[in-house]
Amino acid sequence: MSSSTASRRVLTGITTTGTPHLGNYVGSIRASVRASRAPGVQSFYFLADYHALIKCDDPERIQRSTLEIASSWLAAGLDPEHVVFYRQSDIPEIPELSWFLTCVTGKGLLNRAHAYKAMLDKNAAAGQEPDHDVTAGLFMYPVLMAADILMFDAHQVPVGRDQIQHLEMARDMASSFNHLYGEHLTLPEVLIDDNVALLPGLDGRKMSKSYDNTIALFGSQAQMRKQIMSIVTDSRAPGEPKDTESSALFQIYRAFATDDETAAFARAFDEGIAWGDAKQVLFDRIDQEVGPMRERYAHLTAHPQEVEAILLRGAEKARAIATPKMRVLRRAVGLRALGSTAATAVAPVRTKGELASFKQYRDSDGRFYFKLTEPGGRVLLQSNAFESPRDAGNVVKRLQTEGVAALPELTAHFVPNDTVEQTDLDDALTRLVLHHAG
Amino acid sequence: MSSSTASRRVLTGITTTGTPHLGNYVGSIRASVRASRAPGVQSFYFLADYHALIKCDDPERIQRSTLEIASSWLAAGLDPEHVVFYRQSDIPEIPELSWFLTCVTGKGLLNRAHAYKAMLDKNAAAGQEPDHDVTAGLFMYPVLMAADILMFDAHQVPVGRDQIQHLEMARDMASSFNHLYGEHLTLPEVLIDDNVALLPGLDGRKMSKSYDNTIALFGSQAQMRKQIMSIVTDSRAPGEPKDTESSALFQIYRAFATDDETAAFARAFDEGIAWGDAKQVLFDRIDQEVGPMRERYAHLTAHPQEVEAILLRGAEKARAIATPKMRVLRRAVGLRALGSTAATAVAPVRTKGELASFKQYRDSDGRFYFKLTEPGGRVLLQSNAFESPRDAGNVVKRLQTEGVAALPELTAHFVPNDTVEQTDLDDALTRLVLHHAG
Repeated sequence: MSSSTASRRVLTGITTTGTPHLGNYVGSIRASVRASRAPGVQSFYFLADYHALIKCDDPERIQRSTLEIASSWLAAGLDPEHVVFYRQSDIPEIPELSWFLTCVTGKGLLNRAHAYKAMLDKNAAAGQEPDHDVTAGLFMYPVLMAADILMFDAHQVPVGRDQIQHLEMARDMASSFNHLYGEHLTLPEVLIDDNVALLPGLDGRKMSKSYDNTIALFGSQAQMRKQIMSIVTDSRAPGEPKDTESSALFQIYRAFATDDETAAFARAFDEGIAWGDAKQVLFDRIDQEVGPMRERYAHLTAHPQEVEAILLRGAEKARAIATPKMRVLRRAVGLRALGSTAATAVAPVRTKGELASFKQYRDSDGRFYFKLTEPGGRVLLQSNAFESPRDAGNVVKRLQTEGVAALPELTAHFVPNDTVEQTDLDDALTRLVLHHAG
Repeated sequence: MSSSTASRRVLTGITTTGTPHLGNYVGSIRASVRASRAPGVQSFYFLADYHALIKCDDPERIQRSTLEIASSWLAAGLDPEHVVFYRQSDIPEIPELSWFLTCVTGKGLLNRAHAYKAMLDKNAAAGQEPDHDVTAGLFMYPVLMAADILMFDAHQVPVGRDQIQHLEMARDMASSFNHLYGEHLTLPEVLIDDNVALLPGLDGRKMSKSYDNTIALFGSQAQMRKQIMSIVTDSRAPGEPKDTESSALFQIYRAFATDDETAAFARAFDEGIAWGDAKQVLFDRIDQEVGPMRERYAHLTAHPQEVEAILLRGAEKARAIATPKMRVLRRAVGLRALGSTAATAVAPVRTKGELASFKQYRDSDGRFYFKLTEPGGRVLLQSNAFESPRDAGNVVKRLQTEGVAALPELTAHFVPNDTVEQTDLDDALTRLVLHHAG
């Protein structure tokens, strides 16, 4: 459906079970925020709270994590006007699509998922039943993930190597669905991210919550200083030359510094900088980047209703795509209004000639109008008068991008017309949105 | 949540993959329609089209079957005003609840489902891989079924013995959820229906589509006569006494006739009625019951939009329960508006003393009002004036039964009040609906 696309859709989800630390920032948040500004890319970032339910049964923690992760991304510069930034559980189409995919997925495919097989191995080693402590949630996780991706016809999903298999599964599910019901789903491409900067933690191992060796991303300045001061070093005294490659402190610095700064820091190591001084340099460098964000983060976490409003607006944007898409998929599988014929089922549109089109014009009264016309000439929608072509254009634009989702708010702008079936209008708008967005 | 209930909720689903035959009518539809009229029962009947996707990838067939099954139930006398008659796929809360339950269900539980194990056995016998031809849909079927039941706090689900295990699984899932998140879900009771009349088919075996031995419920009169004339009989000639117990024809007659009629038919058998005459008697007796319904069925299937409207109205009634219920469950698991505190999470209400209450009164202006007041005295909702106490009462009644779902339509009746949080009002109404309905 997306072969004619001008912009690539890239989708990233973050499970809402933790609090972002400096490793998450360097490895994921910072790079993603940069990538979201690339031209020709439409970025989707979502807070994966349905996924959080698989491994977390603490409601407060999920709610708190949702706020902290959303605030971190926003504080780090994610522009919710430019990207689609939403919370998974605000999109009811996702669990529904997940069920559609469940019905076209062989159970054998899920049996082979690495995460599930790892549990089988662990249980075997411990002499337990194969499915001991395995929830259906863990087992079905790849299907929900596929729904996240296929819902928005995402072209690319940046993942680590451990997630490649899940992407392949999403492709398999899309293929099965398309084989049975027509070419409705876009097969996502894996975008392997081998350059993910792995930050060492306080003890030199990879920074990870499970090692309890993290530096908080948005704790207080005092907390960050204290954590940085506790980075493990060797016992070389001030004045002794120090090794950079084996030093976690140096690796962390490099993740924040320019090449010149890094070179200067290496010289200081060679010249025997005291560990305490080196830690102060590191703290200053990180704080230079993170400090300005900290205030925004503090503001957002203290005003959760502002974050909530941003997420709800993001959900509107996401649903402007998901709702018409799901309408097409529901028809494809046979969940249709009784009395609608197969002919009214929305087929994917490949050429612009099959689309209804908007025509703006100035009438003899000197005022501005538009209409939406089918290729065959039937008028699906006739506007009332606008005072300026710009006002008319704005309404057209909303219809083109938001589709049926925009209709309720805009009703006052249209001439009521009982001769056009609502489903015909809905279908035409849905096709336009899909074409426009695809 | 339902210990104080006055009425039992009984729930029945019908998978939308086939066309009802006379065996379905005698075994399920007729008995259900009668049961729906029993006092003290709130009946839920739904067209299980999400379930249909598990075994049917023919969209036209699902759509057609939905129309035919809905029309059959309505023609057979189901009163959609009295019961809640809806289409599963009109309730987006169901796939969402299905995911919640997926996350609290051990995979081991699903491994033990009879339907799944039957597939394993079949594959083993055929020398196939264990999960050959098993979709994730088949495997996850018990979870979707549990969501259907638990969504509406159904107390009883009438099932055949082969379905007992699925009910027990639904109870297990409800227990797991309640254990983790509080007592939110009602454990359904199995209502074993051993008296299901099993109608023999044309060949004497159980009437079933899989044996291709069915008599259409709502075919034409001519078709029904033809099918009845093809019922297999023995070769006894007219005048020879005939055995009733071994006669499919006699069994079918008994399923429709009174005791007196049955006795008379038995005498006719004993007196050697010709098979052709016996078939004519059978045809007349069935047509006496089914004939009047046939016209209604023909009308409904010819006017699918009427059935559609009935189902959409049913979905409204179902969602008036499902939407607030799901709001409670979402909060319970941690999918909450950011900034809402744990205290604003809706706790199940056990005593009437914890509920907000409506008070109707006549003011000094001689007009009629109501307000909704918290137990602590805070006014959550103040009405504008009504001309009659009855008008005020009608609005109160809608709020009590439909809850938040009724708010948008009724806004004009309320005094705007910015000091009351919308969530507080929503919660109070939700509690009332749950209490009222439970």
